[in-house]
Amino acid sequence: MTAIFLINGPNLNLLGQREPQIYGADTLADIEAMLQAHATARGVTLTCRQSNHEGDLVSWVQEAGLVGAGVLLNAGAYTHSSIALRDAISGSGAKVVEIHLSNVYAREAFRHKSMIAPVCAGVICGFGKTGYILGFDALTAAAGASQT
Amino acid sequence: MTAIFLINGPNLNLLGQREPQIYGADTLADIEAMLQAHATARGVTLTCRQSNHEGDLVSWVQEAGLVGAGVLLNAGAYTHSSIALRDAISGSGAKVVEIHLSNVYAREAFRHKSMIAPVCAGVICGFGKTGYILGFDALTAAAGASQT
Amino acid sequence: MTAIFLINGPNLNLLGQREPQIYGADTLADIEAMLQAHATARGVTLTCRQSNHEGDLVSWVQEAGLVGAGVLLNAGAYTHSSIALRDAISGSGAKVVEIHLSNVYAREAFRHKSMIAPVCAGVICGFGKTGYILGFDALTAAAGASQT
Amino acid sequence: MTAIFLINGPNLNLLGQREPQIYGADTLADIEAMLQAHATARGVTLTCRQSNHEGDLVSWVQEAGLVGAGVLLNAGAYTHSSIALRDAISGSGAKVVEIHLSNVYAREAFRHKSMIAPVCAGVICGFGKTGYILGFDALTAAAGASQT
Amino acid sequence: MTAIFLINGPNLNLLGQREPQIYGADTLADIEAMLQAHATARGVTLTCRQSNHEGDLVSWVQEAGLVGAGVLLNAGAYTHSSIALRDAISGSGAKVVEIHLSNVYAREAFRHKSMIAPVCAGVICGFGKTGYILGFDALTAAAGASQT
Amino acid sequence: MTAIFLINGPNLNLLGQREPQIYGADTLADIEAMLQAHATARGVTLTCRQSNHEGDLVSWVQEAGLVGAGVLLNAGAYTHSSIALRDAISGSGAKVVEIHLSNVYAREAFRHKSMIAPVCAGVICGFGKTGYILGFDALTAAAGASQT
Amino acid sequence: MTAIFLINGPNLNLLGQREPQIYGADTLADIEAMLQAHATARGVTLTCRQSNHEGDLVSWVQEAGLVGAGVLLNAGAYTHSSIALRDAISGSGAKVVEIHLSNVYAREAFRHKSMIAPVCAGVICGFGKTGYILGFDALTAAAGASQT
Amino acid sequence: MTAIFLINGPNLNLLGQREPQIYGADTLADIEAMLQAHATARGVTLTCRQSNHEGDLVSWVQEAGLVGAGVLLNAGAYTHSSIALRDAISGSGAKVVEIHLSNVYAREAFRHKSMIAPVCAGVICGFGKTGYILGFDALTAAAGASQT
Amino acid sequence: MTAIFLINGPNLNLLGQREPQIYGADTLADIEAMLQAHATARGVTLTCRQSNHEGDLVSWVQEAGLVGAGVLLNAGAYTHSSIALRDAISGSGAKVVEIHLSNVYAREAFRHKSMIAPVCAGVICGFGKTGYILGFDALTAAAGASQT
Amino acid sequence: MTAIFLINGPNLNLLGQREPQIYGADTLADIEAMLQAHATARGVTLTCRQSNHEGDLVSWVQEAGLVGAGVLLNAGAYTHSSIALRDAISGSGAKVVEIHLSNVYAREAFRHKSMIAPVCAGVICGFGKTGYILGFDALTAAAGASQT
Amino acid sequence: MTAIFLINGPNLNLLGQREPQIYGADTLADIEAMLQAHATARGVTLTCRQSNHEGDLVSWVQEAGLVGAGVLLNAGAYTHSSIALRDAISGSGAKVVEIHLSNVYAREAFRHKSMIAPVCAGVICGFGKTGYILGFDALTAAAGASQT
Amino acid sequence: MTAIFLINGPNLNLLGQREPQIYGADTLADIEAMLQAHATARGVTLTCRQSNHEGDLVSWVQEAGLVGAGVLLNAGAYTHSSIALRDAISGSGAKVVEIHLSNVYAREAFRHKSMIAPVCAGVICGFGKTGYILGFDALTAAAGASQT
Repeated sequence: MTAIFLINGPNLNLLGQREPQIYGADTLADIEAMLQAHATARGVTLTCRQSNHEGDLVSWVQEAGLVGAGVLLNAGAYTHSSIALRDAISGSGAKVVEIHLSNVYAREAFRHKSMIAPVCAGVICGFGKTGYILGFDALTAAAGASQT
Repeated sequence: MTAIFLINGPNLNLLGQREPQIYGADTLADIEAMLQAHATARGVTLTCRQSNHEGDLVSWVQEAGLVGAGVLLNAGAYTHSSIALRDAISGSGAKVVEIHLSNVYAREAFRHKSMIAPVCAGVICGFGKTGYILGFDALTAAAGASQT
Repeated sequence: MTAIFLINGPNLNLLGQREPQIYGADTLADIEAMLQAHATARGVTLTCRQSNHEGDLVSWVQEAGLVGAGVLLNAGAYTHSSIALRDAISGSGAKVVEIHLSNVYAREAFRHKSMIAPVCAGVICGFGKTGYILGFDALTAAAGASQT
Repeated sequence: MTAIFLINGPNLNLLGQREPQIYGADTLADIEAMLQAHATARGVTLTCRQSNHEGDLVSWVQEAGLVGAGVLLNAGAYTHSSIALRDAISGSGAKVVEIHLSNVYAREAFRHKSMIAPVCAGVICGFGKTGYILGFDALTAAAGASQT
Repeated sequence: MTAIFLINGPNLNLLGQREPQIYGADTLADIEAMLQAHATARGVTLTCRQSNHEGDLVSWVQEAGLVGAGVLLNAGAYTHSSIALRDAISGSGAKVVEIHLSNVYAREAFRHKSMIAPVCAGVICGFGKTGYILGFDALTAAAGASQT
Repeated sequence: MTAIFLINGPNLNLLGQREPQIYGADTLADIEAMLQAHATARGVTLTCRQSNHEGDLVSWVQEAGLVGAGVLLNAGAYTHSSIALRDAISGSGAKVVEIHLSNVYAREAFRHKSMIAPVCAGVICGFGKTGYILGFDALTAAAGASQT
Repeated sequence: MTAIFLINGPNLNLLGQREPQIYGADTLADIEAMLQAHATARGVTLTCRQSNHEGDLVSWVQEAGLVGAGVLLNAGAYTHSSIALRDAISGSGAKVVEIHLSNVYAREAFRHKSMIAPVCAGVICGFGKTGYILGFDALTAAAGASQT
Repeated sequence: MTAIFLINGPNLNLLGQREPQIYGADTLADIEAMLQAHATARGVTLTCRQSNHEGDLVSWVQEAGLVGAGVLLNAGAYTHSSIALRDAISGSGAKVVEIHLSNVYAREAFRHKSMIAPVCAGVICGFGKTGYILGFDALTAAAGASQT
Repeated sequence: MTAIFLINGPNLNLLGQREPQIYGADTLADIEAMLQAHATARGVTLTCRQSNHEGDLVSWVQEAGLVGAGVLLNAGAYTHSSIALRDAISGSGAKVVEIHLSNVYAREAFRHKSMIAPVCAGVICGFGKTGYILGFDALTAAAGASQT
Repeated sequence: MTAIFLINGPNLNLLGQREPQIYGADTLADIEAMLQAHATARGVTLTCRQSNHEGDLVSWVQEAGLVGAGVLLNAGAYTHSSIALRDAISGSGAKVVEIHLSNVYAREAFRHKSMIAPVCAGVICGFGKTGYILGFDALTAAAGASQT
Repeated sequence: MTAIFLINGPNLNLLGQREPQIYGADTLADIEAMLQAHATARGVTLTCRQSNHEGDLVSWVQEAGLVGAGVLLNAGAYTHSSIALRDAISGSGAKVVEIHLSNVYAREAFRHKSMIAPVCAGVICGFGKTGYILGFDALTAAAGASQT
Repeated sequence: MTAIFLINGPNLNLLGQREPQIYGADTLADIEAMLQAHATARGVTLTCRQSNHEGDLVSWVQEAGLVGAGVLLNAGAYTHSSIALRDAISGSGAKVVEIHLSNVYAREAFRHKSMIAPVCAGVICGFGKTGYILGFDALTAAAGASQT
């Protein structure tokens, strides 16, 4: 895998802009830069996108799938409801890792269900910005899924 | 974090013993050895346990919490029903990362719900044996959880 | 009825571009051309649109309703969740036929429910690209709905 | 496909016999005659049946499947509850198109679920007697089901 | 109202034939005779039917509706599931009183729901064979439904 | 049974006072007078009560049970939620017939469930003021409940 | 509208009597006085009532409806369960505005459902005592409800 | 509060353009002008936006929160499903009043649930265009939420 | 027990007639002959019936109960919905063993629930035609049900 | 199949030890002896186990699967909840027949669902100790599962 | 704690008045006397109340809270539905122990849920009149709640 | 009753070992000693057990039942899911009082349901270590359960 799309969904553009004492001082740009460095060091081309529009996420996942890129996808709120995004993943054949900064299972019940997880390669959540690094490593590792 | 417990639950002792063409040739011993090497290289003491008994998992999580060790926990089937394990995690104060070899969200509906995820630090699933490495790295990384 | 909008929703732009052995070699452009020929032969003006954005579908249905055109609508994934699209149909007064290429009732449970069907004239699903022809004929036929 | 069974279920024998100002003046005999003419013109043998008994519908679908005839099936109320009819369709291998005169999705909630749709080729509803013509055309068309 | 159909559904033919110490010594014939006498004394023509077949009940309700007869209907087990019977009642325009010998609300939960009650004139249950007399009187009384 | 309580619940005091063209010109007093005449003619003492308070209905049912009177109970809205009324019926041993003027099954879903029906002798609904007469006759008839 | 009833339900008599640092120093008497002044300045007769009894609220809404007064109704806990209150509103024809001091949607799930909202003119919640002023203004404004 | 955003969601652009006898002659422009006058008279800067795109509403709420403006939000159909909008409100810290022209609780069940109400200051519905004035007044009033 | 009815329900007449490579070459006649031989060898009179009509199954179970015969009942699809069949079993007092050829619990969810199992002596499923032999042996064995 | 494990779960060690007038005088040892005789006569090696620990059942099913033995499994209460046992059955490849002494469908609702039935060969319940003999015969019979 | 209110709800006034062979010969007066003696011996002032009206229970709990008395509350049927009582408890700050004579968990499902338990100090049920003594002791004991 | 088993379930061994400022300084040993003193003073033999294994709790309850001892059972997390424990209680005939230190109804929803309460004598929760004393007194008191 030599190309990866980092796709962030709704409200992730707010990171670092408000209440840094709560959410940390890292902006989305900081996270993208961190991951860009990690990718460059491993010879992987990283493309960064963010949108508040479900349709944009759909189109970008399609694009990644058609060019054979892997996807690190933090779909934010659309994670829990978007059948369109699910169809884009399975329809385009993109290999996608679902990422969440927070542990969504420790939050409201409507965040416990992911419409996209069943068609992703795997899920990583709860590790803050480190989760993007872990997802990158998962996407570029060789081992496949196994029992339990 | 200088000590980590690797705790595997029911049926994970079957790994590699049956149908290697399906589940891979790696036994649980192979995975434990892989992670032991990873831990040693990073100066972390790794303790490996496996049991088919819910009560054993409860006791071992308590033990880890009391000695201040982190926990890589693949609770297998007990993930989905064990309140006792949840109470052990929150009661002992252990920092736990929930691991699954397979993408549980692509399997039966009763595997989509985790009783322990809300009290774990985070969840990693779908990446086969690589997931244990990722979980180890998550446990030893500094960054905490953040928004979305 | 002398004007019809053919509106296709998310991921239908993928048709024919990937895995032709599975989904057929017909692209969305092929289907639009097929229906354009059918419409021209019957003296009907056909307008073709596709978008991955829910908001675009809403706006186009409004537009059709306001100019008195009928609508052949394959809303894809938005079929199952879009109250906005439902409101656009009932609010604009557009006569809409809901189309699906596949038999959605033979797929996942979340595809069995349509938010828009109750405000459409009728539903046709499961007949592949032929469904668009059938929908066109339904829209231009005189007979109304009846018992059972 | 050179033979088609038109099978109508419970209460469809009432068509046109009561309140023609509401349900139209067409009797079931009128509809059967309309479709008979359509079939004859296309070289298809049409067999017409109606019953208020679930068991009769089961037997007739079996019969159609065993002789290789397609089926236009308006199962009326049994649509929503009959597992026996579903088993007859899948067990006999008959190719069946589910038809409803009215848009069942605009009526009571218990009419929104079809027990037979998952094993039918497709569904057509909401277009009154025209729906039988559309179903006939669908059954005799070549194109198969596709994506979305 | 000068004509009434007494229609009894599945298993009501068992009345009085088994365990008279439990269900009473009255057979269905006894009950029909009792009601026949009540009807004759009031100048009403009573027609008595019983069947274990849902389709027969459907056809008889249609028949009653078409000849303008009222219906005393103890649909037995079909009460709780038959959409076909419901459609026969509303489609034929028959005025129907739903009767049950026992208090169905004091029995299993699946007997608490009636598919036909919403399209009947009213419901009487729990009064044994007296319920048929009460239903007859209700059907021949002048007063309509009112508030609460 | 020589004594009967007629107990009407919340909002039944409104009968006849508003919109007589809809609810009829009969006031609650008219209905009570009608039933009083029916009772007197049959040598039964009738006691009439009405309240908007759940607690009053509870107390009056207790009173009836303790003096051995039967109860004609139109509990209005409390029918659907009052466990206290249910306990009063079963605790006091009163024989109660549940009455509703309208066919509650043809109205909102929350009116389809009765908390008290399981402990009543039977239910009569949908026959307007005639229902009170029928209930009276049911209460004073000899026949007990039977099968189905 | 020249007359308005302000009806407060259970526990609203506690306002200002306990923990003023939390609920504010305003007692129910203070709020009634505030609204009385607002009403007087606008030539409206205001009648203030409070009770912990569901039956009292029912009776007062009936009274308002019969004399043609509008109602500002904070039914407190009865909001979520009282069918009797709902029937009183629709039966008496009173024009009612449902008020809540707090944002009930930010509290326990059982407070998210209102049994009375469907028969009220509208709902205002979350604005503390200001909500009563807003409700008064809504009740005396001319504009009716509209789309969405 | 010296600045307020008026944000209207999907299909509200249809106001006044169709069937004025039903929805009133007021267009969205009329309502915006009405509120603009109200705001100017009170020294508040009003910014008016409308979109059929969920993503636009998300971005505009973020913008309002970041510049410290209050929001009058009629999110239309997205009210009932948009977690993204909910996250935008809580993430941006914007003070938002949820508005609906109609009484949504008197309409279909899927309109009874609001995804955004729990993170809004309050809700106003059922008062037509007057609701915007009430919401403006609520947003500029001093009183906070209180008990019940 | 000297007499047993073998009653097979809807679609079991299809056995062996279609796709023998899938369902086996055994027809229903073959199975009936196999069981007839088993019964004769044990001095038991076996009566074989099959119908696609729910009403027939009801009547035959009644008949078996009235003559004191045991019943081997594969009710097919009616297993999952027929209250009428349940009532026939409990009303006639027949001792019934519920049989299924396949393991219904490994199939669709709607096949996991049996309406008749609670009133049968026991259930045997998943063992193909052997299940009929096992059911015969269970019916003619002496041991009753016990704990767990 | 030359080897079979008889595995009994929680509380089955109580058999015959308490209230023999209710549960019968047979102890678990008696049942094991009965089946041992049956097995010996047919040349099958029978291994008998019982435990109140879920983990023991898991381990023993694994053991049976690994040595190629069939399993007669009465998992008692763990039947209804144990995903671990289900995983042991499917993971070890053991051929398992699920047994219950009583008819679990005639008992509490939580006993109607089996977590293990979908991965067992079949189910036998309701025939007391005879069920173990039937299960043994099913396990050693040649016929596989078939339709319905 | 020097003052305690004993508040009994609906139908508890029936104790001892009916069927003493079932419910015991103790009247409510007997129980109040028993607890009065217990209280006096411990220097606690006991106030005894009983009502069938939900509103009375609300008012009395408020009263207890305002004077600083603890409450022994057997709310009877209102336990399961009364949000008003819950609000009275949490709003007044009264320390309340929920009591039931019977083990409500061994009765109908609707008695398993308590609306008030979450705001009470604790719950005691199943011990008959002894439960009041235990509740008194719990209320006057020093120890607070702890883990699990 | 001269012998009582005090059985504590999973994680109760953690009491007092961690965060004494939260859970109190009392260890399980302290609580056992407190109750031992209470028992000795009343001539009762107390046996204390604790385990994290569900199977151990099952075995100990069986043991208590067989020797005629009463049981104070704090089953911790197994309270909410263990059918095995429920069967042990009802199967062994042990008289059991269910105890919880905390008020489980004020915690997560999954702790509100007890699988064992229906077969226990009664339940006591919310009173910390005092609850064990109360449970002891309840077990040794003479009064049985009564109405409501």
